[in-house]
Amino acid sequence: METRERKIGLVIHGGAGTIAPSKMTPEIERDLRSGLQRSLEAGSGILKNGGSSLDAVAAAVRVMEDDPRFNAGRGAVFTSAGTNEMDAAIMDGKTLKAGSAGALTHVRNPITLARAVMDRSPHVMFVGEGAEAFARQTGIELVDEKYFYTEERWNALQHLQKAEADARATGKEFAVSDQDRHGTIGAVALDQAGNLAAATSTGGNTNKRPGRLGDTPIIGAGTYANNRTCAMSGTGDGEYFMRLVAGHEISALMEHRGLPLAQAAQTVLDQITELGGAAGLIAIDRNGNVALPFNTTGMYRGYVDAKGNAVVGIYK
Amino acid sequence: METRERKIGLVIHGGAGTIAPSKMTPEIERDLRSGLQRSLEAGSGILKNGGSSLDAVAAAVRVMEDDPRFNAGRGAVFTSAGTNEMDAAIMDGKTLKAGSAGALTHVRNPITLARAVMDRSPHVMFVGEGAEAFARQTGIELVDEKYFYTEERWNALQHLQKAEADARATGKEFAVSDQDRHGTIGAVALDQAGNLAAATSTGGNTNKRPGRLGDTPIIGAGTYANNRTCAMSGTGDGEYFMRLVAGHEISALMEHRGLPLAQAAQTVLDQITELGGAAGLIAIDRNGNVALPFNTTGMYRGYVDAKGNAVVGIYK
Repeated sequence: METRERKIGLVIHGGAGTIAPSKMTPEIERDLRSGLQRSLEAGSGILKNGGSSLDAVAAAVRVMEDDPRFNAGRGAVFTSAGTNEMDAAIMDGKTLKAGSAGALTHVRNPITLARAVMDRSPHVMFVGEGAEAFARQTGIELVDEKYFYTEERWNALQHLQKAEADARATGKEFAVSDQDRHGTIGAVALDQAGNLAAATSTGGNTNKRPGRLGDTPIIGAGTYANNRTCAMSGTGDGEYFMRLVAGHEISALMEHRGLPLAQAAQTVLDQITELGGAAGLIAIDRNGNVALPFNTTGMYRGYVDAKGNAVVGIYK
Repeated sequence: METRERKIGLVIHGGAGTIAPSKMTPEIERDLRSGLQRSLEAGSGILKNGGSSLDAVAAAVRVMEDDPRFNAGRGAVFTSAGTNEMDAAIMDGKTLKAGSAGALTHVRNPITLARAVMDRSPHVMFVGEGAEAFARQTGIELVDEKYFYTEERWNALQHLQKAEADARATGKEFAVSDQDRHGTIGAVALDQAGNLAAATSTGGNTNKRPGRLGDTPIIGAGTYANNRTCAMSGTGDGEYFMRLVAGHEISALMEHRGLPLAQAAQTVLDQITELGGAAGLIAIDRNGNVALPFNTTGMYRGYVDAKGNAVVGIYK
């Protein structure tokens, strides 16, 4: 019996806004590349075994959530109040079902909660204490807030708050590095059944005000999947993704204008650039074409190529 | 000197999911029509005097937020925990700037806070306690939770929770009226300068879980404005608006497919209907064309016609 091998595809990002090349050390770079590699392996292992794109993107994201080098889950950045507030979303391109959770403070894997919102509630989105109550009821792992403490992120908050105070005192502008500003992780996948899915997870921006939500948990902004077009996950200055409804606009350009994936993705990134946003995104279409555009110095990223090989990158 | 009068336009809704015709009393109907009328007057007064569409939609929405007959602000429905949680959003079609606030418990006029998020922060969205902290810092009026207590909404919660408990005990399905399920208010406007704006505000669904956000505060789902296309505000089963990114899809059908407003709005409402959603929406384009489609028994609604007359409606 002849079996036709179905195409699969997986793209991940660990955030646009990388460590400045001058500050990169061999140790940090090894950690980052290893984290991306393990995320790709977790997702592609599922896809190669005939698993769903939904399971693949959730697994790929969970690996990065558990890795303190990435700004999501364990390595989430600190808010201006010295707390950690995390957001995540997942979307199924086949059914257009979606799940999202925002302003989480105790959920070990925000993407797991987003998935539960999609699968086990009639709703799309929960935030704050209500979201964590739902997590408790559905058996999602909650952890002490200390779990999210990492020295590197804490120092970044101190650094940023000092720079801000100095700027206020002197009246001078201060520059914030991309690395300090943001970071988000995400994955998009195509499975053997031809279904697309997208997942995104983030700790937001260092020194953000408590309660601020960016594009990550907003379906159509930083997370979107639709079998008719593409799956996408964004990273960077979330407000621009929200105002442009960026994820859905990429899909609309493909569906209504007939643009190919790469052109649709670049068109929307260019709109973000014009508005002044620093950003990147990953996307995949139903034929397995991928796009990974960004306008920052670098974007932690990776994909599995047509031969099944994992490719990871950091700078341009 | 000849002055060419510029076209203005205003459309409002007070929610799809009206009181069943059999339960309507002359008193309630008079209150509702009067509330819609006063909302139209507040918004159109601003537009006629050359004010901005942003100011007009905010004013129109505030009137309904202060009116206990509508499910937003004062008349917000109760959550399953017996609390009130409100969401609102506003968007400027000229700049694509937007402001949104969710899961509010003490903000008298959620739309005023949404506007402050847009105008006075670099962010688009705040939720929960962080949103209320921002409200406090910007001088937005906070009120005691008792302000949101209305006997009618409290009784609706008791009725719904009893019906749910009975259904669990007997294993039978139970029907929830549109009126008990949802309700949202909103306004869209075109001003003399040709700028579009949209605003939406809601208490969500009776008996909703705390922390659940619907489409109202999601830019592109239940609230969207873009001078190139239209301004829209949705009402009904919010999850379908979120999954379809309904507001932005109406805009995309106009921009990328060249559909006229009414056809774009009806196309997206039909998609919501196909997925099983009960819903309605209002929309206006830059030429002042309006659309007010709904698939429920009724939708509290109103608009100002070409001659400046206010027209209000409840049932089909």
